[in-house]
Amino acid sequence: MPANLAPDMALAERLFVLLREKTADGPGVTREGYGAGEEVAHGLVRAEAEALGLELRNDHAGNLYMTLPGTDRAAKRIIVGSHLDSVTRGGNYDGAAGVVAGMAAVAGMRRAGYVPARDVTVMVTRAEEGGAWFPGGYPGAKAALGIMPPENLEFRRRDTGRTLAEHMRELGFDPDAVRAGRRALSPDNVTAFLELHIEQGPVLESAEIPVAIVTHLPGNRRHRNAVVRGEWNHSGATPRRNRRDAAIATAELAYRLDGEWATLDAAGRPLVCTFCTMNTDPEASMSKIAGEMRFGLDVRSPDRATIDAMYTRLDAIMADVSRSRSVTIDLGPMTRTEPTTMDAGVQAGLARAADALGIAHLSMASGGGHDTSAFVQAGIPAGMIFVRNQNGSHNPDEAMRMEDFAEACAVVQRWAAKAAG
Amino acid sequence: MPANLAPDMALAERLFVLLREKTADGPGVTREGYGAGEEVAHGLVRAEAEALGLELRNDHAGNLYMTLPGTDRAAKRIIVGSHLDSVTRGGNYDGAAGVVAGMAAVAGMRRAGYVPARDVTVMVTRAEEGGAWFPGGYPGAKAALGIMPPENLEFRRRDTGRTLAEHMRELGFDPDAVRAGRRALSPDNVTAFLELHIEQGPVLESAEIPVAIVTHLPGNRRHRNAVVRGEWNHSGATPRRNRRDAAIATAELAYRLDGEWATLDAAGRPLVCTFCTMNTDPEASMSKIAGEMRFGLDVRSPDRATIDAMYTRLDAIMADVSRSRSVTIDLGPMTRTEPTTMDAGVQAGLARAADALGIAHLSMASGGGHDTSAFVQAGIPAGMIFVRNQNGSHNPDEAMRMEDFAEACAVVQRWAAKAAG
Repeated sequence: MPANLAPDMALAERLFVLLREKTADGPGVTREGYGAGEEVAHGLVRAEAEALGLELRNDHAGNLYMTLPGTDRAAKRIIVGSHLDSVTRGGNYDGAAGVVAGMAAVAGMRRAGYVPARDVTVMVTRAEEGGAWFPGGYPGAKAALGIMPPENLEFRRRDTGRTLAEHMRELGFDPDAVRAGRRALSPDNVTAFLELHIEQGPVLESAEIPVAIVTHLPGNRRHRNAVVRGEWNHSGATPRRNRRDAAIATAELAYRLDGEWATLDAAGRPLVCTFCTMNTDPEASMSKIAGEMRFGLDVRSPDRATIDAMYTRLDAIMADVSRSRSVTIDLGPMTRTEPTTMDAGVQAGLARAADALGIAHLSMASGGGHDTSAFVQAGIPAGMIFVRNQNGSHNPDEAMRMEDFAEACAVVQRWAAKAAG
Repeated sequence: MPANLAPDMALAERLFVLLREKTADGPGVTREGYGAGEEVAHGLVRAEAEALGLELRNDHAGNLYMTLPGTDRAAKRIIVGSHLDSVTRGGNYDGAAGVVAGMAAVAGMRRAGYVPARDVTVMVTRAEEGGAWFPGGYPGAKAALGIMPPENLEFRRRDTGRTLAEHMRELGFDPDAVRAGRRALSPDNVTAFLELHIEQGPVLESAEIPVAIVTHLPGNRRHRNAVVRGEWNHSGATPRRNRRDAAIATAELAYRLDGEWATLDAAGRPLVCTFCTMNTDPEASMSKIAGEMRFGLDVRSPDRATIDAMYTRLDAIMADVSRSRSVTIDLGPMTRTEPTTMDAGVQAGLARAADALGIAHLSMASGGGHDTSAFVQAGIPAGMIFVRNQNGSHNPDEAMRMEDFAEACAVVQRWAAKAAG
């Protein structure tokens, strides 16, 4: 590698400014997946790639590939990528940082006159923010890999109510090819995938370390629409022993499960457990004992045994609360993903790159899920690098210091150059 | 008293059928306070009273008085009464039973040719259902007694958004007289007030006893809009120690306060404690830790020291949860009423009447509040009798056996005749 190989941070800063300006929505940004904001963001990045002379291509699902050709065009490629959609009035870095990092890395290669041994591609996936646009998880990445369940094409975007297939077709892409399982990417043409992302949590900030190498993505189990049913009664006239109070039963369930989490946490078992929503029925009012209450539960861990341990406790607590409070507890439909282990070779390569650059790093499991899990599922060696950030993610206050980002970009670039061989 | 003195149960059954038919709303009934349903109900009862030849009068606030004249027209009167409004899609008996009981009692007196020593008046109060129509509590009764705070005239009906004063004026009544504190009733012209009501709870049903003599009305403290504030964060990426989760803090508060209630309950201290509403902020969604949650808390007891003991515990738990979970807990505005003791003479008179008739009865505190508390507040000897009922109250399934009601009416009639004495 040439001694002057460094990421192009001027390009990075320029892209962040443009992305923020062109997709601003109040104090934050909005980039709808398979929609206007994402299209604007793709256009901005594409223009930079054209200026750099990268090869441009979209696949059947609208994912964007910007390639710096290597000496051996037939060799399996290296991909660095992430997404450009955001949640509604989200921050400028969740997703975009991973794309900009790839651009800064390849722009720096081009500027240094460095030609990698194999193609290095910056990939922009589509519609990663499942909570904001389409359920089902990672539609762009899965479509590229030919692993999207065809029924996911019928999922409706949360804001427009129109299907994923309709949105793809509207932008000129090919949902029929997605349905048929066409693969743009596979272990046959990709040697490794790397995604850079802001951490979204406070771990690096607390540890005063700029980057982390991700060891696992969490598995999660989610119940969006659990319901506790008791009996509506007069809050003044119904003695304690005659009550079937759905609200207090839900409170007991939540509090006791949180206590189980505290025990696992103290024992160093990795897990998060969140009652994201808790709502008495709209019929509830003062003077009534709540006959019905709904809640949403999100349990995540990179360790399947820990999730299983939590569910064993959940089952026991549910049985106990149902009996003692004379209510029924129905967790409703569950969505689940299994924990994903990042490729050992990618992790080792990232550590070597960071060490060679003298950049402090730690290893940690991700709390959130990411497109990378789809690549692991498809059998492609894949990994992630986290950048220290402030104020979490999915909000207008998302922040990231550019000096931290520069260190992370340097790791990405060196890793890609080494992996390209 | 004549041997053939008995309540007119044919009239009672006819009135219940008419009330249900003429104010039906789906499976239930709706009788808006100072509105269409209440007017219809007043009209039905008024027509029966006219047929009986009772003296009819409305006061400045629209309360209706139907009087069987006594031999001494100048003597302080006996009043038996309750309300005819209902909650939206409520049941046919909450309120109406007390009015129908009074009508059955005086109709039976007239049929038997019995002339009491003093006037016996059946009173229909207005808009008792505070949760459904006007806040502030017992506007009709308080206006009759000249004890309504003038500002309560500006409270808005929950469905129409128009003020109590506007609704009174629309029906031809005189809110200015209410504002001036005019008194239709006082200790100077009323010797005793009695209200019959369905129990609203399961105590009599469980005890297999048809009627109860009420000892106290509860005091209550209500917080309709308490709020717990923490911090919005990513549910996957935020470790346990960094969380400020408003939902789990609310759950802990509710569960632990319920535990304190269980302790008081086991010690025989009378109290009910209900988290009537619990709701995460509308911004809450899966993948987020709830940064804000609201709840409504209702604490009632006929014993003020028990309410105070509960609040001492509430304060301690709030301080503990706020500290340990890094949230703020704001109970918001509190409305409070003090516990009310029923007149000892009225209680004793009811017990003597029931015993003389061979009707089983028990004594109990009311769980709900009632118009009767306003009479106590105004210094008029007052009491209540409960009738066994099924399926609680404020719902279309409210039920009451007519044989239980007949026994309660017989007690009301005998008590009134003796009290008129």
